Amino acid sequence: MDTAELKTLLTNAHATTPSGKIVRVLSQRGALSGARIAGITGLAKSTVSTTLAELRKSGIIVDDAASKSEAPTGVGRPGNTVTLNPLAGTCVGVLLGVQHIQVVIADVSHAVLAEKLFYIDPDYSPARAAEVIKALIAEACDELGISQRTILGVGMALAAPVNPLDGRILRAGGIPTWTGVDIRAEFEPVLGARVFADNESNCSAIAEMMWGAAIGHEDFVFVTLDIGVGGAIVHRGHLVTGIAGAAGEFGHMSINPDGALCRCGNRGCLELYASFRQALVFAEQRFGRPMTTEDVIGLAFDGDEGCKRLLLDCAEAAGRGLGIVGSVLNPGLFVIGGALARAGDLFLTPLEASYNKHTLVKRTDVGNASQTKFVTSKFADNGACLGAVGVVLQHHARLA
Amino acid sequence: MDTAELKTLLTNAHATTPSGKIVRVLSQRGALSGARIAGITGLAKSTVSTTLAELRKSGIIVDDAASKSEAPTGVGRPGNTVTLNPLAGTCVGVLLGVQHIQVVIADVSHAVLAEKLFYIDPDYSPARAAEVIKALIAEACDELGISQRTILGVGMALAAPVNPLDGRILRAGGIPTWTGVDIRAEFEPVLGARVFADNESNCSAIAEMMWGAAIGHEDFVFVTLDIGVGGAIVHRGHLVTGIAGAAGEFGHMSINPDGALCRCGNRGCLELYASFRQALVFAEQRFGRPMTTEDVIGLAFDGDEGCKRLLLDCAEAAGRGLGIVGSVLNPGLFVIGGALARAGDLFLTPLEASYNKHTLVKRTDVGNASQTKFVTSKFADNGACLGAVGVVLQHHARLA
Repeated sequence: MDTAELKTLLTNAHATTPSGKIVRVLSQRGALSGARIAGITGLAKSTVSTTLAELRKSGIIVDDAASKSEAPTGVGRPGNTVTLNPLAGTCVGVLLGVQHIQVVIADVSHAVLAEKLFYIDPDYSPARAAEVIKALIAEACDELGISQRTILGVGMALAAPVNPLDGRILRAGGIPTWTGVDIRAEFEPVLGARVFADNESNCSAIAEMMWGAAIGHEDFVFVTLDIGVGGAIVHRGHLVTGIAGAAGEFGHMSINPDGALCRCGNRGCLELYASFRQALVFAEQRFGRPMTTEDVIGLAFDGDEGCKRLLLDCAEAAGRGLGIVGSVLNPGLFVIGGALARAGDLFLTPLEASYNKHTLVKRTDVGNASQTKFVTSKFADNGACLGAVGVVLQHHARLA
Repeated sequence: MDTAELKTLLTNAHATTPSGKIVRVLSQRGALSGARIAGITGLAKSTVSTTLAELRKSGIIVDDAASKSEAPTGVGRPGNTVTLNPLAGTCVGVLLGVQHIQVVIADVSHAVLAEKLFYIDPDYSPARAAEVIKALIAEACDELGISQRTILGVGMALAAPVNPLDGRILRAGGIPTWTGVDIRAEFEPVLGARVFADNESNCSAIAEMMWGAAIGHEDFVFVTLDIGVGGAIVHRGHLVTGIAGAAGEFGHMSINPDGALCRCGNRGCLELYASFRQALVFAEQRFGRPMTTEDVIGLAFDGDEGCKRLLLDCAEAAGRGLGIVGSVLNPGLFVIGGALARAGDLFLTPLEASYNKHTLVKRTDVGNASQTKFVTSKFADNGACLGAVGVVLQHHARLA
């Protein structure tokens, strides 16, 4: 197997050779049949067939074990699928949380090999984060018995927009002390690997597209509803990044110019109304103890009217904001992530009703196929970290 | 020349043959060199060269006259450009205005051959529109001495979203009596040609991309600021249509849920604040005579403080709305069209200031290359009609 060749193929996102195109599509989608590869890449089936043979010979791809047991479908040869050779390399995903750092190691066939979690004091510095990540990667590689040289890249999910032009963190993010930090310059020397960074919601959207609730959707909007409110937009299978990396910042739509000051410097941002922060303050007053979003959701499921109302109010505010997003994008699908998604229909039903009230195209205006659908994320909490792996795999990288 | 073959190549938007790809890219971009075609399509230069020779032989493409006088650049052969053969076919663009119908005829090399304008009573029916368009096309073809059989398609720009799934006009549009009309079923039998329809702002965005202020931009937002407020979003060279065709309806972002009722059924839509309708009412009161937007702009240029204030108020409201669009999309470029664009900096300067106040990423947050730019449309009034020609050429068609 030729890891160097694979690295080159993966690294050159603009490769127009058949092998470059095939490796890219396999890294993005996981296991695929030759016919499907031809369909996606636009390459002739004969070209795909010849190139797959070459890639198989050099050990870059392998027949997908999971597909072997599948019965032949349709006419002709069975629809066997191939994947990138799991041994051909690993990708690291990192989530930089407020009080924790999460690391996931996955192989290029999309299988997660290891996961590490480290609790850290808030307001940690980039240098401290780099040390922690380095140690977690080393620990995971040791446990897996693999060399760190197999790492094709490290994807990082950040609670801030990352400028795709210079790889620096924007002021608009939630981590003020990191404003202006050049992610690549800061982390590559310490980690000794190529680093790709994107904001958390963009990573989550990639995870939903590759492994989650948006599989098969080329156009959707991802929304984080939690203590913070964020989002990401996917159009024709590509993230909409924005000129400075700040597309999808739904939490900072200013919906009331006379409202309270937001941490971003604007007034009346959606986050001030749709975040669950204020709701938790009320819940703590009511119950006289520290409360998490999960606590409130649990009590709401148990029938507590106050907790149900906190979820309802938050859903109505969020629906109003998403109604605006709907008038801008008219998406076919909203994938709702973040802690509030775990309330399921208790949250989703009033959210949809509020959306329908405030957006331009009402549910009754169009047939079912043209209606905007709402689903919750497939991930409990590691969507963004898994998505950071996807950032490496997909070359949706901001620093590439 | 083989018009039938060209029609087939143009019609099959998903053709993956080299000739299909080359015809498509020429129809979208106008004149191109072989090297540029190879760059855009990803085809090998030798394939491009062979295919161009075949297409030249069958008369589908011709060497671009304008490029012949250019001096050779770089090494090797001169960078001669080719276009689709102007004789290979014509495209019709139609704008259905409130009180006028405009028809443009262009050839496939992007040259406008004829333009017709017809004033019509408001609230005209689709059947009446079809008759008028048919007569205008016949008249123009007669004058040009060309057969109507050369027409490859008719693009129609409508003041309403068109559902890409079923080709029907949405309720959300400004022409209530047309709600639910199936454009293709209504117009194709009368016009005897393939019909493509899209909303006005989407057509304008296509015109800006192909001939106007957004040439060379793959990502931008077009905004109409006039009596109505609308827009369109282009990502990676493709229109963002939305699941029901209603993306880019910035005028119907509900920015004040307790505001006045809008014609769309929501409250406090941006259009209620940023449209120039109310400003004209004030201007008519002030001057005691019927006033157009152009009149107010003219008086503002002459120094009338009241008229300057009407433009300023409108710019501030529009900037607030676009600030929200900025937090959603963080676009690199806004192209401002509609009558208010004609006020130039008198309108654009306060618009930008208001945008910067209300959006997430401030001008001072990022370097010049990452800043959102504002420019005015390149078209006086036929942007949308020209864009409807572009709809046919680009296969951005909603009914395809």
